[in-house]
Amino acid sequence: MTSIDLNADLGEGFGRWRLTDDERLLSVVTSANVACGFHAGDAPTMRRVCELAAARGVRIGAQVSYRDLAGFGRRAMDVPPAELTAEVAYQIGALEVFARAAGTRVAYVKPHGALYNRVVRDEEQARAVVDGVVLADPTLPVLGLPGSRLLELAAKAGLPAVEEAFADRAYTDEGTLVPRGEEGALVTDPGAVLERSVDLARGGEVVALSGRRIGMRARSLCLHGDTPGAVDLARRVRDALEARGVRVEAFA
Amino acid sequence: MTSIDLNADLGEGFGRWRLTDDERLLSVVTSANVACGFHAGDAPTMRRVCELAAARGVRIGAQVSYRDLAGFGRRAMDVPPAELTAEVAYQIGALEVFARAAGTRVAYVKPHGALYNRVVRDEEQARAVVDGVVLADPTLPVLGLPGSRLLELAAKAGLPAVEEAFADRAYTDEGTLVPRGEEGALVTDPGAVLERSVDLARGGEVVALSGRRIGMRARSLCLHGDTPGAVDLARRVRDALEARGVRVEAFA
Amino acid sequence: MTSIDLNADLGEGFGRWRLTDDERLLSVVTSANVACGFHAGDAPTMRRVCELAAARGVRIGAQVSYRDLAGFGRRAMDVPPAELTAEVAYQIGALEVFARAAGTRVAYVKPHGALYNRVVRDEEQARAVVDGVVLADPTLPVLGLPGSRLLELAAKAGLPAVEEAFADRAYTDEGTLVPRGEEGALVTDPGAVLERSVDLARGGEVVALSGRRIGMRARSLCLHGDTPGAVDLARRVRDALEARGVRVEAFA
Amino acid sequence: MTSIDLNADLGEGFGRWRLTDDERLLSVVTSANVACGFHAGDAPTMRRVCELAAARGVRIGAQVSYRDLAGFGRRAMDVPPAELTAEVAYQIGALEVFARAAGTRVAYVKPHGALYNRVVRDEEQARAVVDGVVLADPTLPVLGLPGSRLLELAAKAGLPAVEEAFADRAYTDEGTLVPRGEEGALVTDPGAVLERSVDLARGGEVVALSGRRIGMRARSLCLHGDTPGAVDLARRVRDALEARGVRVEAFA
Repeated sequence: MTSIDLNADLGEGFGRWRLTDDERLLSVVTSANVACGFHAGDAPTMRRVCELAAARGVRIGAQVSYRDLAGFGRRAMDVPPAELTAEVAYQIGALEVFARAAGTRVAYVKPHGALYNRVVRDEEQARAVVDGVVLADPTLPVLGLPGSRLLELAAKAGLPAVEEAFADRAYTDEGTLVPRGEEGALVTDPGAVLERSVDLARGGEVVALSGRRIGMRARSLCLHGDTPGAVDLARRVRDALEARGVRVEAFA
Repeated sequence: MTSIDLNADLGEGFGRWRLTDDERLLSVVTSANVACGFHAGDAPTMRRVCELAAARGVRIGAQVSYRDLAGFGRRAMDVPPAELTAEVAYQIGALEVFARAAGTRVAYVKPHGALYNRVVRDEEQARAVVDGVVLADPTLPVLGLPGSRLLELAAKAGLPAVEEAFADRAYTDEGTLVPRGEEGALVTDPGAVLERSVDLARGGEVVALSGRRIGMRARSLCLHGDTPGAVDLARRVRDALEARGVRVEAFA
Repeated sequence: MTSIDLNADLGEGFGRWRLTDDERLLSVVTSANVACGFHAGDAPTMRRVCELAAARGVRIGAQVSYRDLAGFGRRAMDVPPAELTAEVAYQIGALEVFARAAGTRVAYVKPHGALYNRVVRDEEQARAVVDGVVLADPTLPVLGLPGSRLLELAAKAGLPAVEEAFADRAYTDEGTLVPRGEEGALVTDPGAVLERSVDLARGGEVVALSGRRIGMRARSLCLHGDTPGAVDLARRVRDALEARGVRVEAFA
Repeated sequence: MTSIDLNADLGEGFGRWRLTDDERLLSVVTSANVACGFHAGDAPTMRRVCELAAARGVRIGAQVSYRDLAGFGRRAMDVPPAELTAEVAYQIGALEVFARAAGTRVAYVKPHGALYNRVVRDEEQARAVVDGVVLADPTLPVLGLPGSRLLELAAKAGLPAVEEAFADRAYTDEGTLVPRGEEGALVTDPGAVLERSVDLARGGEVVALSGRRIGMRARSLCLHGDTPGAVDLARRVRDALEARGVRVEAFA
């Protein structure tokens, strides 16, 4: 029987502000990327999300980011490697305290936003992130894009490298994401998203923008939860996977 | 043979700014109160200070604060207890990652600035701080003022409560600090500071502002290091203690 | 013909986060309390709200706050007066640039959250806020609670002091607000809110919690807009006022 | 008689931290680049610096930056243009309130750190900065590097574009700065700095790294003040200029 992990960003509020419907998302996903305070995620929210996730058996991951509350971590920054390494470790440590208090542990690390995109190709920053993870815990898995420098350097450093795919993003024939902004980059039809989710989970493949089927091995699917409709769709993705015999569970 | 711990605030820079001469202070103190990012202390500084402290065998404590960079944690804040608890735990967790990476652990917690003063009498905030420490690690000692609500509640919660004294502050006959701003509140004569340090460490007593000798049991002396002169004086305090047969070592 | 000003908080998002439905609120109120970046309100939001307000002829006020994004300005802070004065002026100046760019000016100042409550009785902070307003512009009106130290000191400093009332809050016989948390403190019945709005605007009086009618002179009513229901109610308040012959217009 | 403006960064502390010796620098320079809170510069510091500058007749400029306290504005950021424009205007407005209160006005704008470097070539960000200045005041001069996109676009937008030169930085034969990190990039010999200052001010030329004399028209020299030695050297530069018949005064 095939299995797949479902991950989504949670706890992306700050202070008075809320963004994600954490409770509902936690009934869908198996891995929760929890914001750690640098792009979102105040301490009380981190604590609450960790308690909820632990109570539901959802795995907790540190969603590390550039230090940029005003930009929600979406503005790439030329952070010197030593600073980035320390900032990544800081965030993991801060989350770890709430994960432990909830009876579990931080189980993986996933960069957020502009940092996620940057470490696909930027060797220096990818290495800095990996160094930060190793500093915090040299056994922590890293979640990222297949073929990214991040996963490559994580594997070299002895960290489990976990590939993820997106059912709602178009892929090129080479298996890279079609950049946002280009035509067809986003898959908006819910039926297509469900179908692609099943294809990715069961067959390890996906239909590229060209129409060609390409291989796409991924141990996790990234779902979105920052709109009510997104959570509904996430729920339907999970239902469709299970209906098609895919076991939804956290990556090994 | 009598022994005493010497503690001081370290790592109180932020980004481009430096305040404390961490390297020199680490040659004097046995316990380093490391800023954790809320009033001072960026991630790279926290890492560096932990590495230096570990290399010298100086114990690392989490100097937790209100979230107030602009006010250096010196402005009292009415933080709701649940928020304060989470913020305290967050800071301890963030520092723990650097302490562990340096081969050691966070060994105690000491509130900073306005929070330190507030939890002397404010039961609600004192409890919130204790809850935050317990959340992070229910075995962590708490450093504070003798007779403070903080230490009282820490002890009730099963945390080791460690009393500290100040050789450069005047005391009332009741053993409380003469408030800053009142005449004679600060002991500025270096010779007097040295003498009081030895009195506190050896005899567990100190001359109050009235001239009367009072008992003052403290397992740690708090030294200052935010001016060049302060570090020199701290060095002389340590030398005077050792010359008078006091073993300077971290509290048990 | 009687007239009344309607004010509400706007632009209380930050970066990725939104809180208030600014466009709808601007179709209801005559004075917009715009967040200036200390508790909420990033620069692009401030600009957008000023442009929208100017386009609709809604007056722009600076909603000044403690520097506390994580607490949304709801945590009272012991800010030294000189710091508070400068922080108030800073916020007014930052908003002024967007008001001017939109072809208008900052027309008044209203403290937010914990600062609003603090300056009802805290003379030192009330004076510091007034000093900050005077520093920015010695002709700016200040909006606040009748009988507050803030308005008293504002008037002494030559600033127009504008009293506001709340149709959805209960009053004591002495005309002070029944503290939140006490029974009956909030008026939740929409019909009662409408009736009280008209009473306040037309008769300068309101039914106190005891049932007694008391005088309550106010040149502005404060409406809320941080939930969809609140904006609907605000709309109904305006409609009810106009239906009863009250002209809704910015205070003179 | 030849004249030259001398500018330096001031007010680059934050809260408890100080960096620049503002009082001494104000006795040397004719234009003060005042930090506006995004990379440094809390509100009380901004107020104090404006008062000191106004009292000495030193012109006040807004030193605008990326929003990056932890990185002191030295980490380039991919800020979307609309955000950058609003952030630039916000900073100018905040400073303007203190300049006006001190009886003067913000007289020019100079980007700081990573933003300064970025707008040398990045057209999008250069345009965003210019738009921010225009939003705040369409008559404000902009200070920058000769040949930069910033100055080019400022001029096109009708803003006075003021070129500055560095006596302590090496130039290529093409008149661009030798990048920091390359050999000979910094001119560290005080005598050479003095000589180059006079050459720049009197002759509009400077000896390039190759030894060739090149033309370098600049209406302002940028001095540094973040170390005690730097302020001393700045003082000597001014003395040398005046001794050689150059009038030191703010640019027209």
